[in-house]
Amino acid sequence: MRSILVLLLLLPAFVRAQALTQADLDRAAQLRDAAKDSGQAFSIVESLVTEVGHRMAGTPNDAKGVAWAVAKMKSLGFDRVYTQPVSFPVWDRGFESAAIVAPTPQSLNVTALGGSIGTPEGGLRAPVVAFTDVAELEKAPAGSLRGKIAYVGNRMQRARDGSGYGPAVAARVGGAVFAARAGAVALLIRSIGTDAQARTPHTGTMRYDNMLTRIPAAAIGNIDADALEAALAVGATTVELNLGSRVRNGSYTSANVIGEVVGSEFPDQIVVIGGHLDSWDLGQGALDNGAGVAITMAAGALIAAMPERPKRTVRVIAFANEEQGIWGGKAYAASQKEHLAKHVLGAESDFGAGRIYRLSTRVRAEALPVIAQMHTVLAPLGIELGPNDATGGADLSTLRDAGMPLLALNQDGTHYFDYHHTSADTLDKIQPGDLDFNVGVYAAMAYLAAQAGLVF
Amino acid sequence: MRSILVLLLLLPAFVRAQALTQADLDRAAQLRDAAKDSGQAFSIVESLVTEVGHRMAGTPNDAKGVAWAVAKMKSLGFDRVYTQPVSFPVWDRGFESAAIVAPTPQSLNVTALGGSIGTPEGGLRAPVVAFTDVAELEKAPAGSLRGKIAYVGNRMQRARDGSGYGPAVAARVGGAVFAARAGAVALLIRSIGTDAQARTPHTGTMRYDNMLTRIPAAAIGNIDADALEAALAVGATTVELNLGSRVRNGSYTSANVIGEVVGSEFPDQIVVIGGHLDSWDLGQGALDNGAGVAITMAAGALIAAMPERPKRTVRVIAFANEEQGIWGGKAYAASQKEHLAKHVLGAESDFGAGRIYRLSTRVRAEALPVIAQMHTVLAPLGIELGPNDATGGADLSTLRDAGMPLLALNQDGTHYFDYHHTSADTLDKIQPGDLDFNVGVYAAMAYLAAQAGLVF
Repeated sequence: MRSILVLLLLLPAFVRAQALTQADLDRAAQLRDAAKDSGQAFSIVESLVTEVGHRMAGTPNDAKGVAWAVAKMKSLGFDRVYTQPVSFPVWDRGFESAAIVAPTPQSLNVTALGGSIGTPEGGLRAPVVAFTDVAELEKAPAGSLRGKIAYVGNRMQRARDGSGYGPAVAARVGGAVFAARAGAVALLIRSIGTDAQARTPHTGTMRYDNMLTRIPAAAIGNIDADALEAALAVGATTVELNLGSRVRNGSYTSANVIGEVVGSEFPDQIVVIGGHLDSWDLGQGALDNGAGVAITMAAGALIAAMPERPKRTVRVIAFANEEQGIWGGKAYAASQKEHLAKHVLGAESDFGAGRIYRLSTRVRAEALPVIAQMHTVLAPLGIELGPNDATGGADLSTLRDAGMPLLALNQDGTHYFDYHHTSADTLDKIQPGDLDFNVGVYAAMAYLAAQAGLVF
Repeated sequence: MRSILVLLLLLPAFVRAQALTQADLDRAAQLRDAAKDSGQAFSIVESLVTEVGHRMAGTPNDAKGVAWAVAKMKSLGFDRVYTQPVSFPVWDRGFESAAIVAPTPQSLNVTALGGSIGTPEGGLRAPVVAFTDVAELEKAPAGSLRGKIAYVGNRMQRARDGSGYGPAVAARVGGAVFAARAGAVALLIRSIGTDAQARTPHTGTMRYDNMLTRIPAAAIGNIDADALEAALAVGATTVELNLGSRVRNGSYTSANVIGEVVGSEFPDQIVVIGGHLDSWDLGQGALDNGAGVAITMAAGALIAAMPERPKRTVRVIAFANEEQGIWGGKAYAASQKEHLAKHVLGAESDFGAGRIYRLSTRVRAEALPVIAQMHTVLAPLGIELGPNDATGGADLSTLRDAGMPLLALNQDGTHYFDYHHTSADTLDKIQPGDLDFNVGVYAAMAYLAAQAGLVF
C-alpha cells in the first residue's frame, strides 16, 4: 500500500485528473454489495444446466444454449442483445472404452481427448510404454514406439491459482504429436486433474501435426492411471482402446451471444466481460463455464439496473466454442479489428465458481494508480492486489495479444481441477454465495472501468 | 467397568475356572501388537487386486481369485488349506446406459442391480414416476404404473456404524417387486451410497417375486438422481434405459477357500474368522471385501506363526459369492450341519478397511465375563465394549441363526458407503496402518476364543 501512496503523490496532475471520483467509487461499492444473498447468478446457471444441459460445440445443445442465452440476456434488462455467427468443424465423441487386457484384465475409465480420431474398427490392442512427462516422450526416437501405446503419467498438482495445470496439460495438448513421431499407435495420458477419490477421466483438447500420422488420444482417471502404472511396474502390460470419436465433414455455425449496457457518454468505447457458453459433454458444464457466464451476465444486469447508464458501454459476451479452439473468441476479435482501440478493458470469468481472491492486471503503468483506486472497492472483501502480468481468459487472448488491457479477477481454483472437463462438473459443485460474491466484484470493476477517465 | 467387576465377583467358581489365564491374555496382547507397521494385510489385498482384479462371481476372475487365495494361504503358513465347492447361477452385467431424453436430454450414470434382467432389445423409454421411498412405492395400486418407470429417491444417511444402509437399501432389494406389481416397466433408484461429489452409481443385489413380471432394475448416482428429481420438479420427464444384463443358463461352481491353524487340544472345535472373496465387478473389490479377506488371512498367519498352536482350531474362510446371495456362507453352513456345536465362535470382517472401534457380541450371558476379559486386551486401543445383540457378517448368518456365538469387531464405516459397490472401490481407499490395527484385533480375539475354557 505504501508504494502506491508514494506513486499517487508523485503523479503528474494530468494523470490525477483521470482518476475515479468518490461518487464513482461509492456507486461501485453499492454494486459490489448489491448481489449479496441474491442468488441470481446461481439461478442463471441452474436454469442453463437444467433447461439446456451441457453445451458441447456443434451438438443440438449448442443451439439450445444460444437460444437460452439470448432469451436470458433479454430478460435481464440489457439494452441490446444480439448474436454473432461462429463457424467451426464438429467433433463427435462416440463410444469410448479401454481396459488392461494382459497380464491381469482390468477395465479403465477412459475418455477421448477432444479432436481425437477414433481407433480402427473393433479397437486396438498394444503394449504400453510409459513416460514420466511429455518432455521425456518428446525424446523418444523416431520408430521407437512402433506398434506401442505411449502413456504419459504426469500428475497435475493442486494449487489455488491453478498453476499446476500448465505443466501437466502439455501432455494432453502435445502428447499425440510426439507419440506419433516415435511411431506409437495411440496416446494414453493420466487425466489432467487433481481428483484422487473417483475414477473420473478428464477430457480436453489435443493437437495433431498435419505432417504426421494422426493417432487416437485418450485420458484415463487418476486411479486408473495408478493401476496401469502398478501393472507396468510388474511387467509388460497390454491395453485395449476403443474410441468412436471423429471429426464430421463440413462445419457448424454457432454464435457468440452479446448483451450490452450502452454507454451514456462514450457508447463506442467498450468494457468487455464474459465467459464461454460452450462446455464439454461429459458433465453439465456448470463450473466450466456456466458459472462464468452466469457471473458476468448477472454483473451486467446489475449495471443495467442502475438509475443511470455508465459513461462507456459494458458488453457481456457468452462466447461460442472455447473448448475446441477458442473459435468464439477469435471470431469476436476478427469482427473488432477496426475497433480494437475502443476496447478499453476486458475481464473473463473462466475458472469455475470459487471466490475471487486477487485482482491482477495487464495495463499500462500509467493506469496503475486508477487500478489502485479500483482495488479500494475490493479490499474490504479481502481481495489482494496482484501483479500486472495477468494473461486473462482464453476467449480474450486474441484481443489481449492485440493490446487490449486486462483485469484478471483470480478465482480460488483449489478444487476446480477435481471436476474440470469431467462428468462430475455439475451444479452441486457451486455455492450460490460464492457466485454472488463474484458478481459484485465483476459489476463493480466493469462499472469503474466504464467510468474511468483514461484508457488502461 | 464397575458392573463387570461386580459380575466377576458374583460368578460361581465353575465359571471363574473357565476364565482366560494371564498367560493367554499376555499372548493375545503380543498378537495385538505384532501386526503394527507390518503392512502385511495391505500387501495381501494389493496382491489380490493387482494379480486378480475384481472377483465377480462366475466371471473368469472368480476362478483366478480362488487359485490366488489357495496359494496365498499356503504361503502364509496355515497347517491345512483346502477348498469347498459352491455352485450358483451366474449373472452377466453386459452393457448399461441411461439418459433423460425429454424434456431436456441428459445422460445418467447408471448401473444394473445385481440379478436384474436386461431391457428389451434397443432399450426402453418411459415417463418416470417418483416415490420418496419403497414404503411409498409399496402403496402404489396395481396397474397404476403401467408403462411407467418407477423411481425411488431415498438417500442413504452417513453413520460410523453404517446404520443408514438398512433403511435405504430396501429400495434396492425390494423395489422391483412393488414396481412390477403396480405395472411399471422398470425400476430406477437413487444409489444406495453416501458419496456426494462423484456421479458413480452403486450396484448391489435385488430380488424378484416369482409370481410377478420381472422388470429391469438399475441405480443412478446421487448427483444424477438430483438432476432427475430437478427435472421431475419442473414437469413430466422421460428416461431411456438400456441394460444388457441377464442370468446365464446353467450354473457355475466356485469355491470357499479355507485355511486352518489346527488346534493342539481340541482340533475339532472351531473358531471361524473370514470374509468373502468375491466382489462386484465395477471396481477392484478392495474395500468390499479384499480388506476383510486380507485382515483375517493375516490374523490367521500371525497365530500360525506362534511357537505353540492354540487349543482350538482357528479356521479362516474366504467365502465364495456373498454378493449375489451368500452362496458361499450357505454352502459352508450346509457342510457343517453335523458340526454346528463345534463352532465355538465366529467373526467376519466385511465392512471395508476402517479401524475397529467396538467389540460387540452375540454370546450366552454366562460367557460375558470372559468377553470382558477379552476386551481388556482391546481397551488400550480405545476399542469400546458394545452390546450383546450383534448380528455379524452375512456369510456367518446361517450359522448364527443355527446358534453359533458371534463376535462383531465393528469397523468405522463413515466413508465405506462412499465407495461400496462402485467403480471407486479401489486400493487407494485403504490405509495400511488401519489394516494392521484390525489384524492385531482379529488375531488376539481369535486366539483367546481358541483358548477359552467355555463355549460362548
